Amino acid sequence: MQKTGHERNFTDRFGTTADVTRRDFLTTVGKTALFASLGIFGAGCEAVDRGLIDRGLLPVVLEDLQAAGLPKPDMLVHSENPFNGEFAPHLLNDDVTPIERHFVRNNSGIPERAINKDLRDWKLVIDGEVHKELALSMDDLTRFPQVTMEVVLECAGNGRNLFVPEVSGTPWQRGAVACSEWTGVRMRDVLQAAGVKPSAVYTGNYGEDQPNDGSEPFSRGIPLEKAMDEHTLIALTMNGEVLPAAHGFPARLIVPGWIGSAMQKWLNRIWVRDRVHDSEKMSGYSYRIPAYPIAPGDTPPVEDMRIATAWQVKSLITQPQSSLESSTGTPIKVRGHAWAGENRIDKVMVSTDFGLQWQEAQLIPPSNRYAWSHWETELTFGNKGYYEIWARAYDNTGAAQPFTQPWNPKGYLGNVIHRVPISIVA
Amino acid sequence: MQKTGHERNFTDRFGTTADVTRRDFLTTVGKTALFASLGIFGAGCEAVDRGLIDRGLLPVVLEDLQAAGLPKPDMLVHSENPFNGEFAPHLLNDDVTPIERHFVRNNSGIPERAINKDLRDWKLVIDGEVHKELALSMDDLTRFPQVTMEVVLECAGNGRNLFVPEVSGTPWQRGAVACSEWTGVRMRDVLQAAGVKPSAVYTGNYGEDQPNDGSEPFSRGIPLEKAMDEHTLIALTMNGEVLPAAHGFPARLIVPGWIGSAMQKWLNRIWVRDRVHDSEKMSGYSYRIPAYPIAPGDTPPVEDMRIATAWQVKSLITQPQSSLESSTGTPIKVRGHAWAGENRIDKVMVSTDFGLQWQEAQLIPPSNRYAWSHWETELTFGNKGYYEIWARAYDNTGAAQPFTQPWNPKGYLGNVIHRVPISIVA
Repeated sequence: MQKTGHERNFTDRFGTTADVTRRDFLTTVGKTALFASLGIFGAGCEAVDRGLIDRGLLPVVLEDLQAAGLPKPDMLVHSENPFNGEFAPHLLNDDVTPIERHFVRNNSGIPERAINKDLRDWKLVIDGEVHKELALSMDDLTRFPQVTMEVVLECAGNGRNLFVPEVSGTPWQRGAVACSEWTGVRMRDVLQAAGVKPSAVYTGNYGEDQPNDGSEPFSRGIPLEKAMDEHTLIALTMNGEVLPAAHGFPARLIVPGWIGSAMQKWLNRIWVRDRVHDSEKMSGYSYRIPAYPIAPGDTPPVEDMRIATAWQVKSLITQPQSSLESSTGTPIKVRGHAWAGENRIDKVMVSTDFGLQWQEAQLIPPSNRYAWSHWETELTFGNKGYYEIWARAYDNTGAAQPFTQPWNPKGYLGNVIHRVPISIVA
Repeated sequence: MQKTGHERNFTDRFGTTADVTRRDFLTTVGKTALFASLGIFGAGCEAVDRGLIDRGLLPVVLEDLQAAGLPKPDMLVHSENPFNGEFAPHLLNDDVTPIERHFVRNNSGIPERAINKDLRDWKLVIDGEVHKELALSMDDLTRFPQVTMEVVLECAGNGRNLFVPEVSGTPWQRGAVACSEWTGVRMRDVLQAAGVKPSAVYTGNYGEDQPNDGSEPFSRGIPLEKAMDEHTLIALTMNGEVLPAAHGFPARLIVPGWIGSAMQKWLNRIWVRDRVHDSEKMSGYSYRIPAYPIAPGDTPPVEDMRIATAWQVKSLITQPQSSLESSTGTPIKVRGHAWAGENRIDKVMVSTDFGLQWQEAQLIPPSNRYAWSHWETELTFGNKGYYEIWARAYDNTGAAQPFTQPWNPKGYLGNVIHRVPISIVA
């Protein structure tokens, strides 16, 4: 049943862009584009920035964003520093999400190296519970077999703004998810090259991004078993392009089915550990969920928290756009994606009457395991009025999306059914 | 399939209480009980009332309430004048709701006659599109065949506080519903005695209650077809007792399956009409719902509003009580009622995981058509945590309760599934 991404010869795409520096890039793009892209922050903001720029005091964060190609057009920007942005569901209709539509989730600034596409002195260090420490250059990495897979990447907090009561954290709606084609090397090939000791149980993954406030760098890890899985990649390209600055240049982890924070960007160290990785972002309430269901608003003791790993079954309605206005008798194409972490999508059911009646959508299988499935159906309404299109995915274990969102303190792993309101006029 | 309430000989129960006047009643009950019953309004309120009473200025409304036996113990009181109160679901566990647990919904004050159980000069007038106007005394009425039925009575606004966005009106939770045993005469027998003209299409029903503010008296009507249905009653007793003051002494309509406002209390006139009854409470947005589904918060033009009639399929979890704390491995009895307006209950499904998995409850058929069905099951939890017991009733047409509440401007006919939170400790 399990399909693996096909291996293919790897062409080094890094040379062509690595010499474009940040300053060159800014010069090329120019201030007009910068201002245009800043429109999303509002007019007041723009005026302030213009004043700064006129005095030669371009704020570093804005320069970084522009250099990193952010924000993307039509992006819903949650924060600038660190930069976090997503897209409305109808903008995620593609089978493979274009880079221009891939959400961006950062914990701190984007490293200079990524913005400059600068590979000088870059090494990926493998250390800890290994027989031989490695410090691999990009050339070294590209000598490993290359694997290409489509993989869903979703922030653990996607859907957080649907939690009641409200929880803290970036208020992701439904767009912090995408499915890209990733090419890279198997993490296990690299780990095996270093020689994993019997004492190894976990990885601790590190990237080049550094918090501005001097706090502990963002680092998470995965169990050795998942690290050694044939589908877990150190990705070097995304949709056939060298990794964009915002997505982890020059290398990031792809841990299929798992929450996005497991997929370390700007990867420069894999610390093989003899215990569960105990960084700040693996501890306390960070990326951890209660061991048992809790009442909305309750916070269980920290010893009852468990590390969040794989996503649960979920679906997205990408067509029609929310608040579509259509007419009676006109067929409406309904389409979307569905995915299920470590499991497979079994079916997607659609309702337009608040869950009274359901029809099964046509399911289009994923390109490979861990890609999302697509589904589509057609709806025709006989009467005018307000309707909601509901999609509910089921996986091969029989699990389905819940009708209301079970709660946890940080709003992780939200997978309540997606509801798209539409209006039918007579 | 249709069961009819059995006819039985009628014993006049009115003589024994009709001579207890309001003042006698107050003297008997005394001020202590009055204060105790007012506890529900809060301490500040009580202090004010005590001051008034000490000066001999008992507010009329409080005197009326006390005389009418209101509020009942454990009642959730929404307003005092007019008096509106309901009970928490776990207090509605009885197969036949005791009078002490029957919600009270008034549009204005309770008539003196009802409080005094005073039948002097009382007549039920039948006029309009009839061959012979009637003015029936209680003696006249009791000469018609008497019918006894258990019938669900539910305020059209029950569940209103579950509407999002919030709507105006009494914020009923889930307790403005009950199932009593009603005895009375068939409305059709009375109408046939008056001789309904071919021009008759609707009734306009009136009661003795009068608004304090001089506005139009509360009056609603029903189509002639429903009025002539063998199950539609002019009820004279409730659970074997003369109608309590708050429930319409000496006579009220029972219009099985339909919203409570169709069941006119303190009935003293049935105006047979040649058109749809066009009183204020039959018009505009009162007891009317949109002809088509509307977006939450929208108000359709008034010409698109339709008179609300029968209830939709619905269920109530009456056991366990909300927020029960239990332990793993301990069986928990789950029980409730289900009803479906003009339809029959087909099954009730129960879920404890936000709708992922469902088990069918054991269904106990209703005593007669238009009574509620009961259902029960047993749940045992293997793991500690927060759970919600969800009940979802299906009727014989295949309709089921929705998972979220479709919206209408006045919050009528809410039938979203009932969710009872419980806590399982290890």
